[in-house]
Amino acid sequence: MVNAVDIHALAEGVRSGDRRSLARAITLVESDRADHRIDALALLDMLGAKKQALRIGLSGTPGVGKSTFIESFGLMLTGFGKRVAVLAVDPSSARSGGSILGDKTRMDHLARDPNAFIRPSPSQTQLGGVARRSREAVALCEAAGFDIVLIETVGVGQSETVVAQMADLFVLLLAPAGGDELQGVKRGIMEMADLILVNKADGDLKAQATRTCADYAGALRLLRKRAQDPDGFPKALTISALEAAGLQTAWEEMQTLADWRQQSSVWQSTRDAQASYWFSEDVRAGLLSILQDDPQTAAQVAQAEKDVRSGLKTPAAAADAVLTPLLKRLH
Amino acid sequence: MVNAVDIHALAEGVRSGDRRSLARAITLVESDRADHRIDALALLDMLGAKKQALRIGLSGTPGVGKSTFIESFGLMLTGFGKRVAVLAVDPSSARSGGSILGDKTRMDHLARDPNAFIRPSPSQTQLGGVARRSREAVALCEAAGFDIVLIETVGVGQSETVVAQMADLFVLLLAPAGGDELQGVKRGIMEMADLILVNKADGDLKAQATRTCADYAGALRLLRKRAQDPDGFPKALTISALEAAGLQTAWEEMQTLADWRQQSSVWQSTRDAQASYWFSEDVRAGLLSILQDDPQTAAQVAQAEKDVRSGLKTPAAAADAVLTPLLKRLH
Repeated sequence: MVNAVDIHALAEGVRSGDRRSLARAITLVESDRADHRIDALALLDMLGAKKQALRIGLSGTPGVGKSTFIESFGLMLTGFGKRVAVLAVDPSSARSGGSILGDKTRMDHLARDPNAFIRPSPSQTQLGGVARRSREAVALCEAAGFDIVLIETVGVGQSETVVAQMADLFVLLLAPAGGDELQGVKRGIMEMADLILVNKADGDLKAQATRTCADYAGALRLLRKRAQDPDGFPKALTISALEAAGLQTAWEEMQTLADWRQQSSVWQSTRDAQASYWFSEDVRAGLLSILQDDPQTAAQVAQAEKDVRSGLKTPAAAADAVLTPLLKRLH
Repeated sequence: MVNAVDIHALAEGVRSGDRRSLARAITLVESDRADHRIDALALLDMLGAKKQALRIGLSGTPGVGKSTFIESFGLMLTGFGKRVAVLAVDPSSARSGGSILGDKTRMDHLARDPNAFIRPSPSQTQLGGVARRSREAVALCEAAGFDIVLIETVGVGQSETVVAQMADLFVLLLAPAGGDELQGVKRGIMEMADLILVNKADGDLKAQATRTCADYAGALRLLRKRAQDPDGFPKALTISALEAAGLQTAWEEMQTLADWRQQSSVWQSTRDAQASYWFSEDVRAGLLSILQDDPQTAAQVAQAEKDVRSGLKTPAAAADAVLTPLLKRLH
């Protein structure tokens, strides 16, 4: 895909903010091929971590109006002169044949905006793999000089945790709901949220959105306030992505929180801890890849698994049969 | 603790059903020491997998009356001439200073029953470590000829998933609840349950327990029926551990399901898949242990992590700095 000479040119292209270069660079970090990985490491190293974008994690289940929100919010930000990148972390995209962002037509104004960049989720089945590559895509968007990187995920299982590990702020988008649906939002996800936005506060749903927002605000007060948060956070607000209402207030709140964190030590210490987390994940994933990628080991794993399934060996003995020669070679 | 000559004697002791030998054998498999691990592997190998016990996973949050249930249910089973082992998988025990079973006085009749064996959770912080050792303790109880192994866990996070990976049946113990509390039971845990027992169906709570049971039965019907279950399962029943009421019916239901699974291919294929799971977990854990246990690698990890935190290296480059020399040694 990219040869050694091109890497410098590609780095230059990314640094100049060229969207085609950025897209090619992301394709490179997403690749599983060993030679691509070497190029990707070289590229990431060349670009370094110069400028910091505001990284906003955004979660919301299908139907809450996430595409409409990203389109409205993104266009407002580019209207303010900001450059906005949108990335998806969606472990389900491999199954469903494409993430929400795969269908760029849902955000066709933003997709055509020269100050915006939209990138669907890489189509891999493993959340770990998607996460690692997405994290590197965020770094590439920063290197390309984007001011804001929106990292969106569908509200399913663990993908929020992974997105929170690459975001400076975490925003949860919800729909107006009846009282009994309120409990459906997982406590763990509520605890992650810096800002809850109750969408669809328009037309017939306006009153219900206001009530829902008050309910969530109450729920947020019950959750223990995090030590690193300024007064009043986490907050719940109503918005209408459709009517582009409340978006400016939401953006002001995000900026207030981001400024507060940057002025305290929270911002940098969170980023350092996140970098350490991803380092650790990369090492673990790389080490475990031996089990598939080393032909000798892969054959031993397959044989040992057969022995376990047939009852010939206990799991512990079979694991030992794989590990002993492997660890001997490593020492 | 145990020298090479003793292993044969220990295996003999376990095989004869001696409770002291069993306790020593479990202590051996729980040990982190490398020489103990070698002995433990030899012991597990010697004992093999001869007889199969009925392994019942049991989950319930604090306050549902789990100790009382285990005491009543266990005594009923020993009364039927069964030999019953009780093991705890409790990742929180390390923090709280002891699992529910640490306090054997709560089940003092069962603890003094010669046909019962009670073992608290190993005091390790890592769920993975606790799980692996508990799984081996289950195998030891089987080798010691116990008919039933109850594997209990507190209803927190992932420990249920881990217990389900070592159980033939999964029982969820719940307390009578108001309608709005019903949603508090995680869907994932409900989906794991073969049998829901609503405890405290006695005294003032009897009517409420019956209502709660009907609610859960309705919720179970909404969950997709698993292909490998006979008609009517999963089920919800009321019991009173305090008055030992409904326990015999619960036991009959467990036997019906166990018999059905044994006669179909489900029982053995589940056990084979579980063995394969634990083999895979053991291999992964053993391989990752290099990162701490190999002094050269551990030093490189520490240095690389420092470089990441100080911003000197990207996570990917730092991971590469650890992995490249490590993987080179393999080839």
